[in-house]
Amino acid sequence: MTEPTRLLRHVVLFKFKDGTTAEQIATIESAFRALPAQIDAIHSFEWGTDVSVEGIARGYTHCFFLTFKSEADRAIYLPHPAHKAFGQLLSPYRDQVLVLDYWSQT
Amino acid sequence: MTEPTRLLRHVVLFKFKDGTTAEQIATIESAFRALPAQIDAIHSFEWGTDVSVEGIARGYTHCFFLTFKSEADRAIYLPHPAHKAFGQLLSPYRDQVLVLDYWSQT
Repeated sequence: MTEPTRLLRHVVLFKFKDGTTAEQIATIESAFRALPAQIDAIHSFEWGTDVSVEGIARGYTHCFFLTFKSEADRAIYLPHPAHKAFGQLLSPYRDQVLVLDYWSQT
Repeated sequence: MTEPTRLLRHVVLFKFKDGTTAEQIATIESAFRALPAQIDAIHSFEWGTDVSVEGIARGYTHCFFLTFKSEADRAIYLPHPAHKAFGQLLSPYRDQVLVLDYWSQT
């Protein structure tokens, strides 16, 4: 199957509450990384922690970058039980989450 | 040349000031899209406008997603005259910009 020309990107940024420990953050990172194996609708996945040098990350420290092939796949992902369980795990430590989706173009 | 295992992602989000016209926004989009042809240090580039359905884009409407192969390439990009000129063009219309960089991992 050929790669579709445009992909639906799903950019997720996390800002953790003050006092969240490195161990708690590592648990959340691992849980998010486990989602692609649990949810086939995720076409691709990568993540990382902020290494910007401009000082305008607005307190966000983590980016999870998911790709879907269609809005239908996103509609499978969002209410998926594994995603919902992740949200429950994150909830006590979440200060703010930012989600912006876009159709990739050049 | 083989693709490096990890890439330096540079996520840029824009929130425009109220009253910025569609034409002004289109000019800025075009100017950003023109940067990869002007700055070789940009390894890859894509962008798009928010189509998220969760309502937590925090007012950001545009994502520009740049990739560098190294911190050295990012250090060429940031002060590059073409990038600086773009910043001048954007300045009157910029409400808030968020930049978060990460080394891609799975």
